[in-house]
Amino acid sequence: MGDLEIRPATAADVPAIVAMLADDPLGARRESPDDLTPYLRAHTRIAADPHQHLVVAVRQGRLVGTLQLTVIPGLSRKGSTRSIIESVRVHADERGSGLGTQLIEWAVDESRRLDCQLVQLTSDATRTDAHRFYERLGFEASHVGFKLQL
Amino acid sequence: MGDLEIRPATAADVPAIVAMLADDPLGARRESPDDLTPYLRAHTRIAADPHQHLVVAVRQGRLVGTLQLTVIPGLSRKGSTRSIIESVRVHADERGSGLGTQLIEWAVDESRRLDCQLVQLTSDATRTDAHRFYERLGFEASHVGFKLQL
Repeated sequence: MGDLEIRPATAADVPAIVAMLADDPLGARRESPDDLTPYLRAHTRIAADPHQHLVVAVRQGRLVGTLQLTVIPGLSRKGSTRSIIESVRVHADERGSGLGTQLIEWAVDESRRLDCQLVQLTSDATRTDAHRFYERLGFEASHVGFKLQL
Repeated sequence: MGDLEIRPATAADVPAIVAMLADDPLGARRESPDDLTPYLRAHTRIAADPHQHLVVAVRQGRLVGTLQLTVIPGLSRKGSTRSIIESVRVHADERGSGLGTQLIEWAVDESRRLDCQLVQLTSDATRTDAHRFYERLGFEASHVGFKLQL
């Protein structure tokens, strides 16, 4: 499959990231890849925050995956710093290649490097394949995730 | 009950916050209120990050509640900024007083003020009372929350 590089996402990567976000049963209903303006504005906000790590996985010059890692200091659990993984996507051509595992393992290693004691994420209740995937990687489905749209 | 004030937590509030974190069936197993050093260090990290809003609820000079709100910019959902609520605690003397509702409503209002489009939180699967509470406040239990201890 060729070498894989995982690196910070630049503004030039935004169109390909948005295409991956939209190429998904849930994402298709909530993304607008035809209008990149709100995404480019969001990329500026992400790039300005040193605790956000939005990355892309690149193979042979093509963007094949993405995720966002956020580092959150806190008081709970003896002052633990936790990381949150969000917006994980693997390009349709790469599904089943092990790239999802590589992305999550990168996020776990990076969390450790950034002195986090806990990694957490939420996954839509309908994504049962993803749930098995995270459990295989050692994550425990210990919580219920609540959302409120404003 | 007297007037309630919700304000940013200072280092001087840390002992009372930790006492509330520990006075909880799950917290009792994972906090160390006798050694505040890691908590004070964590408070310094939180205070240095403008996207962390650790607050306390104060009534008649006594700390009666706490929560932490984190603002996370992102690309998903048309470049939505989301907030995450963590470490919600209400003092044992105040349970059933409506303070939990006031704290969450504060967090939702503050999220709106900070231009968030989504508020999210996770709650341990064993906290079924908390789940009903969040659903009454309009949150949807749409996700499964995964954690990995490092």
